[in-house]
Amino acid sequence: MARTIQSLERAAAVLRLLAGGERRLGLSEIATALDLAKGTAHGLIRTLQQEGFVEQDTATGRYQLGAELLRLGNSYLDVHELRARALVWTDDLARSSGESVYLGVLHQQGVLIVHHVFRPDDSRQVLEVGAMQPLHSTALGKVLTAYDPVALSEALDGERQAFTERTVTGEDGLEAVLELTRGRGWASDVEETWDGLASVAAPIHDRRGMPVGAVGITGAVERVCEGEDLRALLVAAVRDTARAVSRDLGARRF
Amino acid sequence: MARTIQSLERAAAVLRLLAGGERRLGLSEIATALDLAKGTAHGLIRTLQQEGFVEQDTATGRYQLGAELLRLGNSYLDVHELRARALVWTDDLARSSGESVYLGVLHQQGVLIVHHVFRPDDSRQVLEVGAMQPLHSTALGKVLTAYDPVALSEALDGERQAFTERTVTGEDGLEAVLELTRGRGWASDVEETWDGLASVAAPIHDRRGMPVGAVGITGAVERVCEGEDLRALLVAAVRDTARAVSRDLGARRF
Repeated sequence: MARTIQSLERAAAVLRLLAGGERRLGLSEIATALDLAKGTAHGLIRTLQQEGFVEQDTATGRYQLGAELLRLGNSYLDVHELRARALVWTDDLARSSGESVYLGVLHQQGVLIVHHVFRPDDSRQVLEVGAMQPLHSTALGKVLTAYDPVALSEALDGERQAFTERTVTGEDGLEAVLELTRGRGWASDVEETWDGLASVAAPIHDRRGMPVGAVGITGAVERVCEGEDLRALLVAAVRDTARAVSRDLGARRF
Repeated sequence: MARTIQSLERAAAVLRLLAGGERRLGLSEIATALDLAKGTAHGLIRTLQQEGFVEQDTATGRYQLGAELLRLGNSYLDVHELRARALVWTDDLARSSGESVYLGVLHQQGVLIVHHVFRPDDSRQVLEVGAMQPLHSTALGKVLTAYDPVALSEALDGERQAFTERTVTGEDGLEAVLELTRGRGWASDVEETWDGLASVAAPIHDRRGMPVGAVGITGAVERVCEGEDLRALLVAAVRDTARAVSRDLGARRF
């Protein structure tokens, strides 16, 4: 049994390796990076390739992630209760706020975007479903960190990168931000992750009162902020949406 | 080595099982469906859960697909050259046609949607990236089947379901459709997969002249068709897009 599990762990490590950094790697590079014998790496990759999890570029011979992951990721979304309940509410929020809406859940050391509604204008936008956001600097991440103990330990233990001059990276600073978030029931990110962008997010709770995700908007700081403050009507709209989705998940009203 | 590969194949089978049909299954159901000993199934699932590929619902104890698949699926898209090259062209096609645009590639026994541009109106639409379409009845599927020998053998060998009264399921009928597709360089689907919807699609070729995907539009039959025929201007717009993406991939002009 132990051997079986080890081969699966190694296969997952191959996929994680191909998901980050270079993304197209040769067999030797994979074997070296994961400290595996070349024959072992080859057996893993050949099987991953056969199952559609890895593809080989015919021109270069290098390996990259495979199409089966996209199909399975889509199936994951299909069965995602939080996302299903939030679809209509997040659409309404995008219309009423005029900004992009994101729904995120804790995954590993960050926020995984499980739903993204485009800003309702005709601009070209890139879908970010499946993308990760940092816990310590984004509005979604701060909300999860403030309410979910698992997220808190990830944020405290993990590396906290300074993305802009305004990113709070120290432990004391982070604790103060989380205290503020719990006190007022929502979090903000004003140019702490991306220059020129500001976000507001609020927590979603399920029927047991557990924090299962966060919903928020992101937009140009000129539109989302008024001076140094977040526009109150946008904060209210985000919190209304979070309450509506929570109620839909069976959370109590008070 | 053989044991290692077998455990990976079994893990992939667990994921495929959770991606289809019920989608939330108990341990015994998984073991029975895959003809595995319960202990073997438990070892696989425990490791898949540890790696984020499977999640357990705390209320019911049942297993479902995990968030790591969404993250990896998104990474697959990030590195997808065809999709990257097609982003701007498909946006333009959605604007000029006023209809939804889909980009598909052959995956297993069907068409995997790797990009979807919403119809440019304010209607609520569901993103279909990661969804599968059948080969024998959709415009994208017919294009891939007509130009890609691997798709052809999948379409001929596979089950061809009748989705509507107009679906062509017989082998002779399919061969005639493919002949027509090759002759005119594009394929259509007028209510052969979905009642009320019609599609047009054309093939994308790479620098070696290989068919690497298909691009098409789908919309209400009242808008996309004129009587029994597809609107010529829409066909032209789809074929222009397919040519532009092919050129961007390095395909020769003639």
